[in-house]
Amino acid sequence: MNASAHVLPPVCIIGNGLIGGSLMRDLAKKGERVYGYTHSNAGARQAVADGFDVVTDLAALLARAEQDHALIVIAVPFDVVAEILDAIAEHAPSCGITDVVSVKGPVSAIVEKHGMLERYVGGHPMAGTESSGWGASHEGLFERAAWVVTYDYAVAADRVPEGWATLFTQVCRMASLVGAEAVPVSAAKHDEAVARVSHLPHVIAEGLSIVGDRGSTLAQSLAAGSFKGATRVAATQPSLVRNMCETNAEQLVGVLDEFIALLEEARDGLGAERPDMQHLAEAGHRAHTRMAARSGARRESVSPVRISSRPVMRVHPGGPGWVKQLQQIEAVGGRVEVF
Amino acid sequence: MNASAHVLPPVCIIGNGLIGGSLMRDLAKKGERVYGYTHSNAGARQAVADGFDVVTDLAALLARAEQDHALIVIAVPFDVVAEILDAIAEHAPSCGITDVVSVKGPVSAIVEKHGMLERYVGGHPMAGTESSGWGASHEGLFERAAWVVTYDYAVAADRVPEGWATLFTQVCRMASLVGAEAVPVSAAKHDEAVARVSHLPHVIAEGLSIVGDRGSTLAQSLAAGSFKGATRVAATQPSLVRNMCETNAEQLVGVLDEFIALLEEARDGLGAERPDMQHLAEAGHRAHTRMAARSGARRESVSPVRISSRPVMRVHPGGPGWVKQLQQIEAVGGRVEVF
Repeated sequence: MNASAHVLPPVCIIGNGLIGGSLMRDLAKKGERVYGYTHSNAGARQAVADGFDVVTDLAALLARAEQDHALIVIAVPFDVVAEILDAIAEHAPSCGITDVVSVKGPVSAIVEKHGMLERYVGGHPMAGTESSGWGASHEGLFERAAWVVTYDYAVAADRVPEGWATLFTQVCRMASLVGAEAVPVSAAKHDEAVARVSHLPHVIAEGLSIVGDRGSTLAQSLAAGSFKGATRVAATQPSLVRNMCETNAEQLVGVLDEFIALLEEARDGLGAERPDMQHLAEAGHRAHTRMAARSGARRESVSPVRISSRPVMRVHPGGPGWVKQLQQIEAVGGRVEVF
Repeated sequence: MNASAHVLPPVCIIGNGLIGGSLMRDLAKKGERVYGYTHSNAGARQAVADGFDVVTDLAALLARAEQDHALIVIAVPFDVVAEILDAIAEHAPSCGITDVVSVKGPVSAIVEKHGMLERYVGGHPMAGTESSGWGASHEGLFERAAWVVTYDYAVAADRVPEGWATLFTQVCRMASLVGAEAVPVSAAKHDEAVARVSHLPHVIAEGLSIVGDRGSTLAQSLAAGSFKGATRVAATQPSLVRNMCETNAEQLVGVLDEFIALLEEARDGLGAERPDMQHLAEAGHRAHTRMAARSGARRESVSPVRISSRPVMRVHPGGPGWVKQLQQIEAVGGRVEVF
């Protein structure tokens, strides 16, 4: 898109919370051109004081993005996505768009309503902490994380426009630049998987915190690693937790039903005359072993060469058979390297 | 008990797994006299190779403990406690006894059956990892952890025998020596509190591992911090998880019912036409804030002076009103320093 040494076109980040802010820091560190918007005057002042190009005038920023042929990254809570898209339609009608929202089907649906599917590639970095806001953002947040990249549009399209393939390439390269691994996933499969491994853990953290707290100061005093590990994310702002869980409610309800059924079976076993939790303990341990055997990159490696435990496939977006290749990668939870 | 520089009488540890082994390492490092027993030849060989005095002849070891007026620490799984007490009755009829088993009511009941209550003070260090065995044991495991010390016997007794008060002092001093904080708790309150903050998290970890694993390789690939934090302890040996949960079944069933009710309420809210998880998200966040405000010592302190967030009371076991003092400490989840 330009003859400079930049890997990406200018990147325009809408929203500078934990994810948007951390992305901005990493891209700037890599020498990419990046600027952003936040609705909060205080947030913008903080970011500017830290040396970043962040403004509170969305229309002006999007006009700049349009002129720059920038890649727009939507990094706001789900309930603000529609109004951001309205503004993009008005002020940046030809920019490519991606997002980092934690549900993908509902975001796609809004994008479709805006008639913008042909210039949208969904994204979701599987990284975060219990903190939020620019103040919590930091370099390296995405290191070795999976960065989900959706490709439903390419599956549905008779012929994928070249612009869309280019956009897909840019999103994958952006993920890779900040140390993440691009994992191609359909929106529906993503939403089910994150209900299992992210939204359910958040619901659990809230519930377990309440049950622990009912044990009063003594329970506080005795709580150790297992409790703290399982409740850490209950420190997340309740509005953010609601946003992700309520937006993915359909998938989450199904997964909650599965989980409640397992707990009820354990409860019945424990309530028997001879308390018995054999099935849950053994099946849980086996499941944990499988999950841990290949959950992301191997952090324990001491090799200076980065080792990933996700299978990799090199793909040329737009090339022959590339959408089929993405489907093959998705089937094994693998990552894609674009060229 | 002796005129040497030792804080404790010789300590005889029965069982050299994660807890017993780590206790042995810490006591030896502090210059205390410590020796132990394990049923496993391989385990004994490993410990001896590491420079520790560990044997597989329980009768001989207990005879030595009896001669030494040693403090016996039972560090075996619950289902072996009765046979260890049989052996103690035969070979070490006058030693003081404590234990590190994760339930206290059921252990007390077995001790009572053996007619040994007057020489038993229950203990439970709130420390551990998902690993087990001598190979997992290490120095510093108990640093800043709560070490529960039960005192039901002193509450029930008309007059506490001096020997029992001395034993209580020794157990508190041992906890303190290895960096832990002695927290006096009645057996029943302990068992309810650990059902909330330890056994329920274990049940959750098993169930969540299963629900995640059903998401197959994609869920594996996307699982990040919230999932890993909540499932870490599912790596624990299933037999150990069963042992603690099944032994504390009565308390755990009540706590599981509370937790399931919270999940069902959330499920119903999420299943509504307008999905709503407001109550759980906000109540969970408030509960987390309270629990985190004072959960153990402040690890983030950079002060070289050790800071504990548990209120402390100095108590002289056997002195006037000391049992009442313990009850006051228990009411606030505080710690005791004995003198």
